[in-house]
Amino acid sequence: MSALPLAPWRSPLARALHLNRSLVYARYVQLATVRADGRPANRTIVFRGFLPDNQLKFITDARSEKVEQMTHQAWGEVCWYFPKSREQFRLLGRLQLVQADEPDPALAAARQSQWQDLSDAARLQFAWPDPGQSRAAASAFTPSAPDPLHPLSNFCLLLLCPVQVDHLELRGDPQNRTRYDQQIATATSKDSAAASHHWTVTAVNP
Amino acid sequence: MSALPLAPWRSPLARALHLNRSLVYARYVQLATVRADGRPANRTIVFRGFLPDNQLKFITDARSEKVEQMTHQAWGEVCWYFPKSREQFRLLGRLQLVQADEPDPALAAARQSQWQDLSDAARLQFAWPDPGQSRAAASAFTPSAPDPLHPLSNFCLLLLCPVQVDHLELRGDPQNRTRYDQQIATATSKDSAAASHHWTVTAVNP
Repeated sequence: MSALPLAPWRSPLARALHLNRSLVYARYVQLATVRADGRPANRTIVFRGFLPDNQLKFITDARSEKVEQMTHQAWGEVCWYFPKSREQFRLLGRLQLVQADEPDPALAAARQSQWQDLSDAARLQFAWPDPGQSRAAASAFTPSAPDPLHPLSNFCLLLLCPVQVDHLELRGDPQNRTRYDQQIATATSKDSAAASHHWTVTAVNP
Repeated sequence: MSALPLAPWRSPLARALHLNRSLVYARYVQLATVRADGRPANRTIVFRGFLPDNQLKFITDARSEKVEQMTHQAWGEVCWYFPKSREQFRLLGRLQLVQADEPDPALAAARQSQWQDLSDAARLQFAWPDPGQSRAAASAFTPSAPDPLHPLSNFCLLLLCPVQVDHLELRGDPQNRTRYDQQIATATSKDSAAASHHWTVTAVNP
């Protein structure tokens, strides 16, 4: 999690976040994953900011279906539509789960501070009964408040490390569409960190 | 495309559409598909209404990546977030493409009337150069207006036939989540149309 230079798609994405900052749901994105049987899955998740290395942060419950799906297919694509500025970002990348047993100290610390940043109501949801199972009794949804300092064991930080970003601006005349592709580091590269922040930028037809 | 009884998830979805009718982008949804290499893809598309048999209508260009992806994996999941009423529908189902050579007369007619319902600007996009290819000259984006009556050959109607719908209402206390599952018709069923509109409804944990 070293501090890499900003990827070139970070600047238009930051601009979109700024232009849409009055809409709380401009930070809601849709994450596509693949089920164990090969069919796609798709759900709304909340963007929680970036790690220093261009990875997008989200949170999830270890008991959720997407966590199980990631064990079969670690790739995800986030689709992010900004209503005010009328633009879309599609971010394809590898997903990484940061769980209670995370060995990397920086990632473990990021998980803990994310837990501390949550509202009481958001933390409480991780003490609710198993998501997706038959509805539990109402009393199961009023657990005692979890410790605000130390995450519950099922609380996970979910990271997306994009390798391809597709930016479509509907407002252009015609529309503008730009593709960002991360160049794959060769096996002989001695400095994979340096290689990994090499991006090509291409204007494509909308 | 016979007129089946409304599936039980149609009523809450119609209510959400009504509550969010002031937002043009409440008709924008995200469609997840699977790429030929097994990785997911995700993009925003516009909901165009229902066929009489509970199938959702969208439109697409035969040259788009999702059409190629459907030849490998015909399943898709639509994620539909409604900002005003703060609820989400996830609709998993089979995708079907209605192209220029569609043999079913009712579907061919639905494709043609969808084309006629488009704005001039929307029709024009189907005469633009190949989407996703390196940006063509500006002049390529000012073709002559296509015939408003007869669709261009690359214009497709895209149908989603849901078999599972997951409805999450964030406003509940706690949140409410309902799952609708279509019962699979048995091989011995003599009346597959009757069997296919059998749904179970289950309250699940959010």
